[in-house]
Amino acid sequence: MIHLDANASTPIRAEILEAMLPWLRDGYANPSGSHREAKRARQAIEHARSQVAGWLGALPEEIVFTSGGTESINTALRSLDRNTGTGHGLVSAIEHSAVLRCAETLEREVMLMPVNAGGRLELDLLARGLPGAAFVSVMAANNETGVIQPLAEICAMAKAHGVPVHTDAVQAAGKMPFNVRGLGVDLASFSAHKFHGPKGVGALYVRCGTAFTPLLWGGSQEGGRRSGTENTAGIVAMGAAASLMQKLQETGGHGQLANLRDAFENKLLEELPGVAVNGDLRHRLPNTSHLSFDDCEAAGLLILLDEAGIACSAGSSCMSGRQRPSHVQVAMGIEETRARSSLRFSFSTMNTMGEAFAAAVMVSRAVEKLRRVQGSGVGPVQVYCT
Amino acid sequence: MIHLDANASTPIRAEILEAMLPWLRDGYANPSGSHREAKRARQAIEHARSQVAGWLGALPEEIVFTSGGTESINTALRSLDRNTGTGHGLVSAIEHSAVLRCAETLEREVMLMPVNAGGRLELDLLARGLPGAAFVSVMAANNETGVIQPLAEICAMAKAHGVPVHTDAVQAAGKMPFNVRGLGVDLASFSAHKFHGPKGVGALYVRCGTAFTPLLWGGSQEGGRRSGTENTAGIVAMGAAASLMQKLQETGGHGQLANLRDAFENKLLEELPGVAVNGDLRHRLPNTSHLSFDDCEAAGLLILLDEAGIACSAGSSCMSGRQRPSHVQVAMGIEETRARSSLRFSFSTMNTMGEAFAAAVMVSRAVEKLRRVQGSGVGPVQVYCT
Repeated sequence: MIHLDANASTPIRAEILEAMLPWLRDGYANPSGSHREAKRARQAIEHARSQVAGWLGALPEEIVFTSGGTESINTALRSLDRNTGTGHGLVSAIEHSAVLRCAETLEREVMLMPVNAGGRLELDLLARGLPGAAFVSVMAANNETGVIQPLAEICAMAKAHGVPVHTDAVQAAGKMPFNVRGLGVDLASFSAHKFHGPKGVGALYVRCGTAFTPLLWGGSQEGGRRSGTENTAGIVAMGAAASLMQKLQETGGHGQLANLRDAFENKLLEELPGVAVNGDLRHRLPNTSHLSFDDCEAAGLLILLDEAGIACSAGSSCMSGRQRPSHVQVAMGIEETRARSSLRFSFSTMNTMGEAFAAAVMVSRAVEKLRRVQGSGVGPVQVYCT
Repeated sequence: MIHLDANASTPIRAEILEAMLPWLRDGYANPSGSHREAKRARQAIEHARSQVAGWLGALPEEIVFTSGGTESINTALRSLDRNTGTGHGLVSAIEHSAVLRCAETLEREVMLMPVNAGGRLELDLLARGLPGAAFVSVMAANNETGVIQPLAEICAMAKAHGVPVHTDAVQAAGKMPFNVRGLGVDLASFSAHKFHGPKGVGALYVRCGTAFTPLLWGGSQEGGRRSGTENTAGIVAMGAAASLMQKLQETGGHGQLANLRDAFENKLLEELPGVAVNGDLRHRLPNTSHLSFDDCEAAGLLILLDEAGIACSAGSSCMSGRQRPSHVQVAMGIEETRARSSLRFSFSTMNTMGEAFAAAVMVSRAVEKLRRVQGSGVGPVQVYCT
């Protein structure tokens, strides 16, 4: 299978699994213990913390390990809600559901900030919303379109109003340079499995001096900020993945990702008529290609591509065979027919140029096949969803 | 090293790691995806859910996978707090810090219920607290002493008042038969690494029909009850561990655990004067031995045992070289000198009889050595904590 679904999850790289395995085999001592095996686990966790901090431009003590992106985001938003005065929250309309659903559970009002047709936050509308705001949460890059948000500008504007900023950096980290200090964020959420680490481990950056309330209470692990026995193996793997991502960045890996994506996209655009690229092309993650195919239902295309051995995702969520445009596409003003014909292809460092070209050929074929079937007047969903 | 610290954490058994590895190596697809690799991961998770449910006497849909015991407990208590009317919470005085610290953050009053000298909940005092109570949370077995609580009686009494019950079953599961339906609990928390699974994965039993509010919001995984990309490898491992624990139970494994613990304890009691066993001997986990050693500071003993290659825990938490009696010992009325001389030895299915005897000999030697040093009038902490 050619896996072009890296924004959903990435493979654990062999060297990261190697780093992890000793902590699954022998290093099982509870890091809170007092004996030597426990201390060894504690040291491994602190080493991983340094690796993650070094990569992100943070201090080690600013990194809190969690169980993943969703926990980090829920922790950040609840902490902001708890530690800021009256006033509304501001979140972009294209946030991941972890931000949107969590924000809905807060008692304070949370306003959705619109994006332009390219999927970028409208800064002038942010400026209008900032007076009286309690906090801002804007993702660093969108999971569906890969569009990168103007985070440094957002932080500068928020800072001028004394408003703290959280960013969901789950999709950005590992695909573009990301420096918490340079950006000026107060809180940032990360997930290891989006950059070749395992599932079930993530991190929350909490800038020194930021008022903070934990979400999980108990044994006071992570400096009292996240209780629960530390997932030593997962944390070690996240540290190794961070270190690898730092090397990748230093050796031009993001450019290589763009080469793969561009080769795929360009070949497809050259060979197939009726293909459109969604999202702001000047501000886009190097690995993500969000495409609309005229006269093609994404649901049917997904099934044909799965049969052909291509793993990718619908640009909109497929619900019981019927496609509904995603909130991201709605926010960008993409009209419904185009939204229903969108797919997301996302590359990782483990894809090859051969895969990129082969995938372009197979996508072309699948689109042509589906257009023939749909041209015959038979509904694609009924044909394929059985 | 002889690991007698199973109540802190257990080794991942080889067959469980084997079950887990394919999901770290190849099975990395996000289980929420629509392609075949995603569906394969989804099926593996549902198989694990059946394994856990089957072991615990639950329906598969009553099992929610989490990141561990602390998350399960925090989720349960917040959900009870949210979904019950006015009235006080009732928790035992000997709960794990995950219950006690989380309960402190609730706005409603939470009353601590006392235990007797053996460390068991006083049922007549529970009866007095139940009228007007909103919920009860009592652990199935205590982590320090191993004392098993009268949970079936507690559930029956609470049910008579229409009061829902959560139990922290983190220490009980895998060490004694535990059937959620038979006990009549409404919510129960579990952690895989306490029964030979990996760290970073746990489960929450939510009885069908129990009002429930999630703690983590987002992509609506786990039937909307716990959002966040599923930790496929961890969940598969927890399922395999559950299945193994069920087999162990059916083949008398709990009795074998008791044999190990009893051999260790009896040899020590025979050979060494001034040793006392803490906790109700008739209601004790088969693997736990909580001992006090006359004229011995636990802090010094821990260091000598670590040097001798024995991993165990202080019965009370050692804080910067000074011992303070734990809240469990205080609740049991254990006087301070005895509390400061207590250690917890906890066995797992991977310990051997040879280890049990060897450990008894080494503990005897360490205690005798420490008594000689302390008898000389030199403070033990100053001698050993360098």
